[in-house]
Amino acid sequence: MEFFINEKILSEAVADVAAVISQKSTLFILKGIKIEASEDGVRLTGSNSDLIVEKQIPAEKTALEVIHPGTCVLPGSYFQELVKKLPGNVHMKKGSESCVTIHAGDVKTTLSVLSEGEYPRLPELDAGDDFSINGARFLSMIRETMFAVATDGNRPILTGVHLSFSGGTAQAVATNSQRLAMVKQDIDIETENSCTVPKTALKQMLKLFRSSKQTVRIWFTDHYIQVKSSGTSITSRLLDGRYPNVADLIPNETKTVIIVDRLRLMEAVDRAGLFATEWRNHNVHLKFIEGNRLRISSYTPQIGNIEEVIRVNKCSGDDLVDVYVDGTFLLDALKVIHGKKVDIRFHDFMKPMVIQGEGDESQVHLISPVRA
Amino acid sequence: MEFFINEKILSEAVADVAAVISQKSTLFILKGIKIEASEDGVRLTGSNSDLIVEKQIPAEKTALEVIHPGTCVLPGSYFQELVKKLPGNVHMKKGSESCVTIHAGDVKTTLSVLSEGEYPRLPELDAGDDFSINGARFLSMIRETMFAVATDGNRPILTGVHLSFSGGTAQAVATNSQRLAMVKQDIDIETENSCTVPKTALKQMLKLFRSSKQTVRIWFTDHYIQVKSSGTSITSRLLDGRYPNVADLIPNETKTVIIVDRLRLMEAVDRAGLFATEWRNHNVHLKFIEGNRLRISSYTPQIGNIEEVIRVNKCSGDDLVDVYVDGTFLLDALKVIHGKKVDIRFHDFMKPMVIQGEGDESQVHLISPVRA
Repeated sequence: MEFFINEKILSEAVADVAAVISQKSTLFILKGIKIEASEDGVRLTGSNSDLIVEKQIPAEKTALEVIHPGTCVLPGSYFQELVKKLPGNVHMKKGSESCVTIHAGDVKTTLSVLSEGEYPRLPELDAGDDFSINGARFLSMIRETMFAVATDGNRPILTGVHLSFSGGTAQAVATNSQRLAMVKQDIDIETENSCTVPKTALKQMLKLFRSSKQTVRIWFTDHYIQVKSSGTSITSRLLDGRYPNVADLIPNETKTVIIVDRLRLMEAVDRAGLFATEWRNHNVHLKFIEGNRLRISSYTPQIGNIEEVIRVNKCSGDDLVDVYVDGTFLLDALKVIHGKKVDIRFHDFMKPMVIQGEGDESQVHLISPVRA
Repeated sequence: MEFFINEKILSEAVADVAAVISQKSTLFILKGIKIEASEDGVRLTGSNSDLIVEKQIPAEKTALEVIHPGTCVLPGSYFQELVKKLPGNVHMKKGSESCVTIHAGDVKTTLSVLSEGEYPRLPELDAGDDFSINGARFLSMIRETMFAVATDGNRPILTGVHLSFSGGTAQAVATNSQRLAMVKQDIDIETENSCTVPKTALKQMLKLFRSSKQTVRIWFTDHYIQVKSSGTSITSRLLDGRYPNVADLIPNETKTVIIVDRLRLMEAVDRAGLFATEWRNHNVHLKFIEGNRLRISSYTPQIGNIEEVIRVNKCSGDDLVDVYVDGTFLLDALKVIHGKKVDIRFHDFMKPMVIQGEGDESQVHLISPVRA
């Protein structure tokens, strides 16, 4: 194996694949980055047992010149730190069976290789279903739901986002039983598929494709999802189990609807959160008061209280809004909703409130009230 | 107590005094911020048992209007978080013996007060010696030595920077026994004083006066130092004990002197540090080689090695440089040295190397070699 490569291109690619490597891995070989040089270019692979990231760097005049094809596995963290600091074009060469020399400018390095025969085989995805989707829209669906997954492990299926593609609609849902975030989008492909993707994989997807404006290609198999765009691919094991039917959770009768300015409500809930951080007091009180106004307040015994009153733009139905909600849940939802105004629907005390952008059906957020 | 104050001025002052408050303090009252309003303005105080920060905000037309003088102690972290988020001019008023109301825009808050009678009295510094010194130069003396203090507590006196003022010279020294950083400056005042200031206090000083171009006023007593500039003061307990005489540590015979480019050496030592992070291998090898060059290398068994060769601008004396040093110590020293080139003096294997800016006697850095 021998090639010359631009140090910036190498460093960025190594950082992307190294991000999934776990130093705590019990399989020593998984602390390595696999490098495969061929006539087409160089492929880097990083993996932990659940997640695989691959980067294909194409052979191009100025960026990469492959002299001899070959394969090796290098210690991931050392290789990553090293390439960050190399001063110019990099010359990598497998010197013997046991080491790779890396030269750049005046710097000469030798790294011991890990045993490439032990590197696990990646799952075959040829058999699965695949389709393409607008990358920016796919990522925004993830971003706008991911925060709502469960963080405890009582119901593992709830620690991921449930993606479903059916009848020209793509849908992402996340819930931790107390709150739910759902985003829908029209897509111009006919596919019937659904799966639940772990949050850790989704976070990596957002990072890997952050600057991508391109289409992404998605593969599904029974146990894996792969998302691929312009030479970068990420493959994640899916969460096993049946995702709950969320359509039943959305209340269909509404007692009160109010419309308020989104940013103004966010500010008020954020401030009220100051006094809602203690145990059993993680809640913010919303109360409709005379003259079309909403009072947002919170209280911590022995410390103090805060309240402010904001204008309600529109109110219909029974106006007796008087609920306590988890302020952080409300803030999370308000942050990702589009548009200037939000439409909040209240039901009886036992049912969740529904929050949406005004006139926007593509996002639905549910938050269950808490007892005061 | 009642006053109106600009929210930005209040928020910045609160952040400064809150920085020294420890949430772990066993004295509950020290989790509070003391507020004293008088005709002249408002004084805020934050303290832990060793460190006190005070901010005086003068009464001025637009920034602060005091209606009634008075005193209170508010829970520090709540007050700090609250004032960060207030939307406009703040109206603070002590409503009863037990609480203070804080109004800003539509926001109304009540905070319980802590018992002001329990707030500790601050040390009296009237009796001490005091003088003024250029603030920027004083801070740079701290910045250029502080990193070299001992981090373990075996010899508590070494966990601070020793400041001495004598015969028109100000000197700062820090050492952890393996390395030493010393900075000298001429000052145009006659004072004879010396003390050892804990690193935690020095870090706060750098933060508090970071943007100050003004003169600072320094008070000394037997147990305290106070540094004051434009309404802000910090008072720290001094470290007890006798600081070692460092003049004896600087070797006076030199075997070899080399002069190299500072940034070029920094890059090389930084890269070599990649393979010098393991236990017992925290060292970088410096070796003079033929043709007026210096080889910088390091090696970690089972992982790999790195080496690079840089040009030596000048070399005099016996040229057999062949030493191992702690790379992080060398890097720390190179970072704070002024000028493009550094002058490194080597002695026998048991004596520290001496690093200075070329032709600059104001800074001296010593680093003891380690065994390979």
